[in-house]
Amino acid sequence: MGVLEPIARLAAQFSRLPGIGSKTALRLAYFIVDQPETEVKALSGAIIEAKESVHYCARCGNYTVNDICDICENPKRNCETICVVCDPKDIFALERAQDYYGKYHVLHGVISPMDGVGPDDISIAPLLKRIPEEGVKEVILATNPDIEGEATASYISKLIKPLGIRVTRIAHGVPIGGNLEYIDEVTLSKALEGRREM
Amino acid sequence: MGVLEPIARLAAQFSRLPGIGSKTALRLAYFIVDQPETEVKALSGAIIEAKESVHYCARCGNYTVNDICDICENPKRNCETICVVCDPKDIFALERAQDYYGKYHVLHGVISPMDGVGPDDISIAPLLKRIPEEGVKEVILATNPDIEGEATASYISKLIKPLGIRVTRIAHGVPIGGNLEYIDEVTLSKALEGRREM
Repeated sequence: MGVLEPIARLAAQFSRLPGIGSKTALRLAYFIVDQPETEVKALSGAIIEAKESVHYCARCGNYTVNDICDICENPKRNCETICVVCDPKDIFALERAQDYYGKYHVLHGVISPMDGVGPDDISIAPLLKRIPEEGVKEVILATNPDIEGEATASYISKLIKPLGIRVTRIAHGVPIGGNLEYIDEVTLSKALEGRREM
Repeated sequence: MGVLEPIARLAAQFSRLPGIGSKTALRLAYFIVDQPETEVKALSGAIIEAKESVHYCARCGNYTVNDICDICENPKRNCETICVVCDPKDIFALERAQDYYGKYHVLHGVISPMDGVGPDDISIAPLLKRIPEEGVKEVILATNPDIEGEATASYISKLIKPLGIRVTRIAHGVPIGGNLEYIDEVTLSKALEGRREM
């Protein structure tokens, strides 16, 4: 006796989620079948509702349930600075630091020729349009410090600098609480390179 | 800016699944929002479909999409032996061994006074009914070897033995490939107690 068809189909769907392997997916599928119907409908409904109601902010690309996200709509936030990130989730990380009061712009990806992603496939043109429209004076590039993130930051920097706009890159170095002994050499050379007067 | 309401609701639903903590649940919720609509509908549909089409076999309590499960319907399987398990998933485990050709009976739980589960809350009465109906000659108790499983096995045994039916318990001992050094003492005493002539 094998796994029943509807359970196998559900397990296949679950295993497409990140971090869910085939064994966990099967366990989740059985869990669903053993749950009361109201609970199962609540999960299924929440999935559809989240997908239908959440989309990207028409201005910055952040998640929102409205046309424009809360950060873009907030008049207290400084319009003259835009922080450029790869993913809307990066905004949450930066907001947790509670140290940035400007606006954001989400690229929704990075330039990656290996994966066939060029500059036109990510949200660079809308960023260039926002700069004069919103009177932006500084663009902070907060893409991830990996090969694609660095390449994307350097590409955008070359487009924006000629416009006379200040372009900065977030600092890379030893994380607070980090132990030098365990930090990789690339981070250490970045930390040395970026050293400041005390 | 906090987590959007529909994403928080979906994350709360995901975190009710076994083995999914709050961080993973949030990650899954964001993954869903970033997926194409067709994929999201496929997942949501598979959840509802599995719940609606899969239920318990009217005879043995195994999972089935029909009234009676494939094992109960199979004329090649020996009706005279019933193997009693706690959970339908235990049937899959036993079927994988490919060494048992009788029928099954799923209790859907174990007697556990601590959790308020008494003998009437699990499928014992239907088992007692099946014994004369199906001409059963042996009942194999394959509940888990923990306190509740042992108590449940011993309770059922006391009900069935007086009917003149053979009641057996699956053997407990050192698992194949196990290393004596790392086996707990309860398993070792069970293994000694259950020793057989060579």
